[in-house]
Amino acid sequence: MLSVNERRLWDAHVAMGAIGALPNGGCCRLALSPEDKSGRDLFVGWCREAGCTILIDDAGNIFARRPGFDNDLPAVATGSHLDTQPHAGLFDGIYGVLAGLEVFRALNDAGITTRAPLETVVWTNEECVRFSPPTGGSMVFAGLLPVDEFHAERTIDDTSVREDLESLGFLGPPLGHERHPFDSFFEAHIEQGPILEGERMTIGAVTGIQGARMFEVEVTGQDNHAGTTPMAMRRDALNGAARMALKLNELANAQDSAIRLTIGRFDVSPNAASTVPGSVTFQIDLRHPDDAVLDRVEATLRRLLDETARDQGLELGVRDICAIPPVHFDRTLVDLVEDKARALGLPTMRMLSGAGHDSANLAAIVPTAMIFVPCAEGISHNEAESATASDLAAGATVLLHVMIERAGIV
Amino acid sequence: MLSVNERRLWDAHVAMGAIGALPNGGCCRLALSPEDKSGRDLFVGWCREAGCTILIDDAGNIFARRPGFDNDLPAVATGSHLDTQPHAGLFDGIYGVLAGLEVFRALNDAGITTRAPLETVVWTNEECVRFSPPTGGSMVFAGLLPVDEFHAERTIDDTSVREDLESLGFLGPPLGHERHPFDSFFEAHIEQGPILEGERMTIGAVTGIQGARMFEVEVTGQDNHAGTTPMAMRRDALNGAARMALKLNELANAQDSAIRLTIGRFDVSPNAASTVPGSVTFQIDLRHPDDAVLDRVEATLRRLLDETARDQGLELGVRDICAIPPVHFDRTLVDLVEDKARALGLPTMRMLSGAGHDSANLAAIVPTAMIFVPCAEGISHNEAESATASDLAAGATVLLHVMIERAGIV
Repeated sequence: MLSVNERRLWDAHVAMGAIGALPNGGCCRLALSPEDKSGRDLFVGWCREAGCTILIDDAGNIFARRPGFDNDLPAVATGSHLDTQPHAGLFDGIYGVLAGLEVFRALNDAGITTRAPLETVVWTNEECVRFSPPTGGSMVFAGLLPVDEFHAERTIDDTSVREDLESLGFLGPPLGHERHPFDSFFEAHIEQGPILEGERMTIGAVTGIQGARMFEVEVTGQDNHAGTTPMAMRRDALNGAARMALKLNELANAQDSAIRLTIGRFDVSPNAASTVPGSVTFQIDLRHPDDAVLDRVEATLRRLLDETARDQGLELGVRDICAIPPVHFDRTLVDLVEDKARALGLPTMRMLSGAGHDSANLAAIVPTAMIFVPCAEGISHNEAESATASDLAAGATVLLHVMIERAGIV
Repeated sequence: MLSVNERRLWDAHVAMGAIGALPNGGCCRLALSPEDKSGRDLFVGWCREAGCTILIDDAGNIFARRPGFDNDLPAVATGSHLDTQPHAGLFDGIYGVLAGLEVFRALNDAGITTRAPLETVVWTNEECVRFSPPTGGSMVFAGLLPVDEFHAERTIDDTSVREDLESLGFLGPPLGHERHPFDSFFEAHIEQGPILEGERMTIGAVTGIQGARMFEVEVTGQDNHAGTTPMAMRRDALNGAARMALKLNELANAQDSAIRLTIGRFDVSPNAASTVPGSVTFQIDLRHPDDAVLDRVEATLRRLLDETARDQGLELGVRDICAIPPVHFDRTLVDLVEDKARALGLPTMRMLSGAGHDSANLAAIVPTAMIFVPCAEGISHNEAESATASDLAAGATVLLHVMIERAGIV
């Protein structure tokens, strides 16, 4: 059966990983940073060489289009993101983009033109490090986020997203799914969890994504001199925030094993060695496949934050950042992924995604499914993130076959 | 009883505060800046008008001397500093200098000459903003810092301290305590803490300066994806550091009320909302007047950090930043301050200084004590720093009486 070029796919990951390379083999390409621009430029160059046309939309999403015989048909699309976490590996997101490119290259090698056009999309800011929200680019495309709000978001470098898009040369015209419809959307991705590896499976046919809610908590006490202020007279925001962190951790440990509760971002002010901290701002990332569980845990979480702030004499502000309901992928497409993987002789299982993905937004507007491949020890968002060339190629070959099936061959 | 002129003392603060004035009522006169020169010149002019002779030493310290009947006797000295933090109020340091000047003016008004001469000293660079070290001028005078090292220090304006002293006209000959002995040294200062205000006291008879130790703690776990990593498989450095912070807070609360334990600096890495934090670095500022208590608390603190790291499967690094021993002021002088304050009918308590002062260096060579007056809400190193004219006058009147008592009246 037709398959992708394992070595070429691997080498593309290595070349992309050289942009924003970190000392321990990982890389850092924060969304709309200079490194992200270099990564985008590299991808666009590769796609042009592979015969694609390039479209950029108003959210900076890149659509690399491989023409079909009937270009009035909606495209069969794939893709993911090239932006990374600060200490990332070479695969999270990048794999889904490079697998799409490798599908094009493999079709070129085989001299195949599909009936419908194909597209590989790079979505802007899946990771939400330099600015909010996560998966903002695909939200704009899917009509889930007004582009003006996206443009107005402030980055950690005190620019607006619109300013960054303009200065990097990635601000295009409005596109959106109504002007630019897809037949279907597939996203290949490393699992970022330990299940496939543990079950000795190569392909995960992903049935959906757990729900996620994010909150920003601001705890306010009073700055004071560390040498002169008695312990009993302090209103120490760090002490209060640490209590909150531990209560939330206890709350999570009291739920079923599908719960995920993380405080990943935590900023202390004024953050000076000899000043009692007057304020702490932190973010809570809460996930579970069942919205009813999320409702219940969120209510308890809010009560625990309130009680702790009151006990400690601190002021509390809680702001909702996002609430992403659990997502269910298209049954026909999930079946298609599973069938093609089995036909290729690959050990395959159905599974849920623990992480959020751009596909969650696409699923709101078009039949969507995801293809997972294993990563070592489930480690991700870490320079130690690792996947094998053969697993990556297996997933890309499944992608190749599901895209051909949807697009048709004349 | 003899007292100082409250209005004149207040007006001197206002006039001095006009040099380097800031928009919100504070001022900025960094050591050996043009503003500091203007402040020094204003002070020297006032002292000459009040009948003083002026000596400058090799560290730029200014000694304004009011002759006594027997000028072979060692001087009874007072003073503090005129240099400020970048966003300072009108009182930190300045008060101790202007209170000394006001003692001279009040003695002039009353036509009193003391047996021993009196001096008011301006020490160079208490604040350590343009260059290091803090309290460098009094360190040189006390023989705790070789003058060559002090002269060689580089400023933030890329000059040397010696160049600055020369260009401002404040480089004098070597003096030091052996050539220029004091009978005693008193320093009036705002408390920079909330205790006097909270206890409704006017005068603090300061018994010493607490010892301080600083440590940097690095907690290392593993970065991981917030959505996919089961709670039981995490090595969350923030969770571990929060446990440590609370254990150290409990440890501090189990000590006597003189303990101060602060985590002011706390940095999370990679500090991304959807990544389980792989590392946290924080600093501990530990203070107590008794070195034996500091030894005991430090030992427990190290054990608690170790235990918590081990329980949580985290790696731990602890680095010493500094260890400054406690200072004990002269018992006779502390009694004298307390007695004179009580005799003046002023609400008075014994207390420790939480902050460091030039008096810590003087205490190494001569009987020394400090007189504290309240400041609003304990706020200092801030334009909002505030003290009342009547409290400032009360402290200066206590200073007047202790200096007369030590110097004698013929």
